[in-house]
Amino acid sequence: MNRPLAIDPIFDTDFMREMLRQMRALDSYGMHDGKPIDIQLAPFVLSKEARAAIPLLGDPDQRTLSRVKAFYNAIAVLIEKECGLMAVPLVHLSHEGFGRVLITVGKLVALDRALRDVHRFGFESFSKMKTEADKQLSVALELVGRHADVAGL
Amino acid sequence: MNRPLAIDPIFDTDFMREMLRQMRALDSYGMHDGKPIDIQLAPFVLSKEARAAIPLLGDPDQRTLSRVKAFYNAIAVLIEKECGLMAVPLVHLSHEGFGRVLITVGKLVALDRALRDVHRFGFESFSKMKTEADKQLSVALELVGRHADVAGL
Repeated sequence: MNRPLAIDPIFDTDFMREMLRQMRALDSYGMHDGKPIDIQLAPFVLSKEARAAIPLLGDPDQRTLSRVKAFYNAIAVLIEKECGLMAVPLVHLSHEGFGRVLITVGKLVALDRALRDVHRFGFESFSKMKTEADKQLSVALELVGRHADVAGL
Repeated sequence: MNRPLAIDPIFDTDFMREMLRQMRALDSYGMHDGKPIDIQLAPFVLSKEARAAIPLLGDPDQRTLSRVKAFYNAIAVLIEKECGLMAVPLVHLSHEGFGRVLITVGKLVALDRALRDVHRFGFESFSKMKTEADKQLSVALELVGRHADVAGL
């Protein structure tokens, strides 16, 4: 492992650190221990061409699904950190890459998104991934702030 | 089919009618068409002994799972009828009969229950099934009424 550690400041953000933590939790045998963060998170980056090349056949595989879960788990952890209330993520695939993801805080649905083409889950760059997460996080936190009574139930 | 139609007044309630509708929706080939309602809903009734005899091994089968979905779909339909807002059920099994069921109305979690031992999903009698549904329905409707702003989002 002679490669220097990634130094892009994006990897120093709370979100990217949490993403790394989520990916490490999935790595039961420590196969990726010690690898730089950009290598460990590399499966989240897919160019347009790479995405288009993935066939939308049958159900997405477990590794893809675990990345979707890692992404929304990380957002849930950040919601929790920010508002101090438990945020529970639920990624539900119905069939062939369609589904729904919810993050609930108390009795409030802080995040509710339809999923489609989960087979091709990925982002064009780390920066786009973080932008997307930040957007979803801020919408969720705004909702929690506006309906603190329901979120506190 | 010489058996007379079920005449227990419980089958005339909104909930039991909706349960029948849900079961019919699952019966793609009309195999149970024309059968009395108590026969069609019979799989929901399990004595204590019958429940105990079902092994808790592996994941519950699809037919059991579809009954769980039918039950919560029916509750969602009644919530919707009562409050006029769309109620979306989500039955999520994580593993080996454990899971979580949510019914969301707008951004409100109107119902949120942990599921366990789904293999043994059933009720001691139709009357207990209806009592349980009524209880969950009234809790959900009370929440929707109290947080109409969030339910309307």
